[in-house]
Amino acid sequence: MRNIKMIIQYDGTKYNGWQRLGDTDKTIQGKLEQVLTRMSGTNTEVIGSGRTDAGVHAIHQVANFFTEDARTEEEIQAYLNQYLPDDIAVKQVTEVHARFHSRLNAVSKTYMYRIWNLPYSEPFIRKYSLHIPEPYLKVRAMRKAAGYLIGKNDFTSFVSRASKKKSNIRTITDIGFEKKEGLVEIRIIGDGFLYNMIRIIVGTLLEVGLGKMEPEKAAEILESHDRQMAGPTAPPHGLFLLDVKYPEDDETIAEASQ
Amino acid sequence: MRNIKMIIQYDGTKYNGWQRLGDTDKTIQGKLEQVLTRMSGTNTEVIGSGRTDAGVHAIHQVANFFTEDARTEEEIQAYLNQYLPDDIAVKQVTEVHARFHSRLNAVSKTYMYRIWNLPYSEPFIRKYSLHIPEPYLKVRAMRKAAGYLIGKNDFTSFVSRASKKKSNIRTITDIGFEKKEGLVEIRIIGDGFLYNMIRIIVGTLLEVGLGKMEPEKAAEILESHDRQMAGPTAPPHGLFLLDVKYPEDDETIAEASQ
Repeated sequence: MRNIKMIIQYDGTKYNGWQRLGDTDKTIQGKLEQVLTRMSGTNTEVIGSGRTDAGVHAIHQVANFFTEDARTEEEIQAYLNQYLPDDIAVKQVTEVHARFHSRLNAVSKTYMYRIWNLPYSEPFIRKYSLHIPEPYLKVRAMRKAAGYLIGKNDFTSFVSRASKKKSNIRTITDIGFEKKEGLVEIRIIGDGFLYNMIRIIVGTLLEVGLGKMEPEKAAEILESHDRQMAGPTAPPHGLFLLDVKYPEDDETIAEASQ
Repeated sequence: MRNIKMIIQYDGTKYNGWQRLGDTDKTIQGKLEQVLTRMSGTNTEVIGSGRTDAGVHAIHQVANFFTEDARTEEEIQAYLNQYLPDDIAVKQVTEVHARFHSRLNAVSKTYMYRIWNLPYSEPFIRKYSLHIPEPYLKVRAMRKAAGYLIGKNDFTSFVSRASKKKSNIRTITDIGFEKKEGLVEIRIIGDGFLYNMIRIIVGTLLEVGLGKMEPEKAAEILESHDRQMAGPTAPPHGLFLLDVKYPEDDETIAEASQ
């Protein structure tokens, strides 16, 4: 069996998230499996690096699948892009070694959350950002609050109760802020994220940015292991999966193995 | 009467263009007039710098209206943004001198046309760019062809027959190209443009970019004064009105008048 890795981009607006459920038509995974099954003539399962929630977008999602199909990488990519709807794009297709697993091998993920922070709406990114008309967010205070979350921590306070993971310990390596004109971008990098974790972190940072919460409260929330202490879950349409990294992406390793 | 100038941004996807027709609900001008008439309690006409076609977008459109309403600039802007749909935004409201006229006083306009030139679609700009999957556009040849159109010329070859303007002489001061990854942006600056002129110019440059036409043919088309010679009208969804300039925007003049 060949193992094929894909880099995928999607506008999540119309979808019930990544993970296939009953109705394959409304999930990204379902759409991909439909086209690949049709291409190869046999049921094909797609393994994603992780789920994205309903309405969440991806600039760079990674997934792989196993196939006996003889098409070249370019032909597989062309087939996918021909039959996928135009809000899902396959940017790259590469044949990888048999042991590559999109989810298990991922070493870090980067998410971006976008906030449009001016009184008027921004027509071109209104579907791809959270609009906070006023007040101006206190970005410096948000940055300070974010500092308390960086590191290896038990993020129980920032997980939706629906989460069934055994451990809530994760490592956040960076939370960065960029402000350009009316746009505030938050980038969160970590080794993995729990259910709704990014959106609850953003919702909490927004409480700080809106002046409803002191930055120091973030440390207290983290220690409490109590979801009730944190802010609300920020809406999905401002969230993008921006990058997924694997050990083989590291050039040093790639060179060493040659 | 106060004369109020607005800078407006809109996603033209859902609209029948700028100019009010019968059904005010489906034009940008109609939407603005509806809200302003409601605000001031009296029929208010909005004067735009020029029309944009159905489906064309604007990053910076300029319009003005006369009113007896006593609201401040900030209050007018807030009222408009509260009641306009979220695909139309008023970025700035300024009270100007009584003689200011958005259309008659405009000295130059900049339009941008965006082309996404990779085999796969780009989910986030698919509604705001023309997708040409292949071949890669010959941008150098397009640039050469564009060079023949710069200057004061009779653009009869680049006007839809529906145009009723008396003179087809216009001045194009620049046609610039920018290529970043899969995106090709064409910026056209001129003193004014005829009906469909930008889209026919782009349609012609695309023939050159696709290798269907030699760059030198652009000179021949211009001289022919024959619409049949030029390329097809490029679709509207890749086109943006990017800027409209007035003499008072010139800082030298503004300073001199103080």
